[in-house]
Amino acid sequence: EILAAIEAALGTPGPLAGKKAVVTSGPTHEAIDPVRYIANHSSGKQGHAIAAALAALGAEVTLVSGPVHIPDPTGVKVVRVRSASEMLDAVKAALPADMAVCAAAVADWTVANRATEKRKKKAGAPPPVIELAPNPDILAAVSKGEGCSRPRLVVGFAAETETLLDNARDKLARKGCDWIVANDVSEGTGTFGGDSNVVHLVDAKGVEDWPRLGKDEVAARLALRIAAVLGEGK
Amino acid sequence: EILAAIEAALGTPGPLAGKKAVVTSGPTHEAIDPVRYIANHSSGKQGHAIAAALAALGAEVTLVSGPVHIPDPTGVKVVRVRSASEMLDAVKAALPADMAVCAAAVADWTVANRATEKRKKKAGAPPPVIELAPNPDILAAVSKGEGCSRPRLVVGFAAETETLLDNARDKLARKGCDWIVANDVSEGTGTFGGDSNVVHLVDAKGVEDWPRLGKDEVAARLALRIAAVLGEGK
Repeated sequence: EILAAIEAALGTPGPLAGKKAVVTSGPTHEAIDPVRYIANHSSGKQGHAIAAALAALGAEVTLVSGPVHIPDPTGVKVVRVRSASEMLDAVKAALPADMAVCAAAVADWTVANRATEKRKKKAGAPPPVIELAPNPDILAAVSKGEGCSRPRLVVGFAAETETLLDNARDKLARKGCDWIVANDVSEGTGTFGGDSNVVHLVDAKGVEDWPRLGKDEVAARLALRIAAVLGEGK
Repeated sequence: EILAAIEAALGTPGPLAGKKAVVTSGPTHEAIDPVRYIANHSSGKQGHAIAAALAALGAEVTLVSGPVHIPDPTGVKVVRVRSASEMLDAVKAALPADMAVCAAAVADWTVANRATEKRKKKAGAPPPVIELAPNPDILAAVSKGEGCSRPRLVVGFAAETETLLDNARDKLARKGCDWIVANDVSEGTGTFGGDSNVVHLVDAKGVEDWPRLGKDEVAARLALRIAAVLGEGK
């Protein structure tokens, strides 16, 4: 029925016509040296599907994507970045917008002691230590309008391996966003890299548990929820 | 003329018919926690091309590949691994063989303080430190026959960003392999992820500089050199 609703909407201007959206997707890579980097298991499938679903409802979408190996969604403008810092710059450049969906798995930390040449293994020397430093918090910056204009609706993602909902509620309050899509990315759930997802939509009023859905269906359902808040005339 | 030689060989049993080869390719990923890992920029293109080229000359090839986003070469057995430790196990399982080409960009270090749950950013707490520990040295283990049978010909790769040839000669002596294919992976060379490569073939006798070639051409040339040493009746 969700797809039917979207298909029905395709014949008309779409409930999000005239609205601007910024979506982040994929991982970020933080360089250790010219050869090595810190990555994470985000495939970008969920974020890319959300960008496509918002575009299908008529929104003008800028997708800011970390390094991924999936095709660009059709009908959206794609800006490719590597690090969290580059992603923040690209998001700010894409604002103002009516909505932001921060689905990227942004690295919490960057490498403080990044080397300009490849670190060499030296006989007898102890292994190097990688020192980390906090990355800019893109979701908080967008939610609080720090150095940018705050979209009317800001949606964040929480990827956790334990105490999922407590962490999601805490994140909602701490970051200042409107909704959190919380998903369990423990090994065995198949969420990272897989095609389906079990999510919980968390807002100030409570938690809504969604069934296991394809990532495309999660995206379609979320886009329709967004349209219900921001759609024509709202 | 290289391609012509291979094509000519295809009509016959091939100079490496009856010979077994093990090829490693791609990066390895070393887990930091269930979500994050240390990676490197190897695409697997060069290693996969070498596996295909050896198979084209008739060899029975096992390709042990780290996480890559390129298609499996045709006509080879592919074993997929993530970490350096898994790669070593898979290589040993594929031995004995007549030749081993270690083209993978194996992580020198694994994470000594790997976490079983996702590391959380905590307000006021300093960022974590990633402690590293040496990984098994796959090229040295194969070259020295440590816990495995030494192939007649062992070829290693050296990916460097500075003092390329000095490092390659040093690596040849230290690891005990027969040849080193040395390539410059500095930013700007386009080697990592690109389709061409500038390599130097280093053995105990000296250095041979090859021109810029497609990775497929580097692979074909290397396979023919291997066939000249190991081919029928040798």
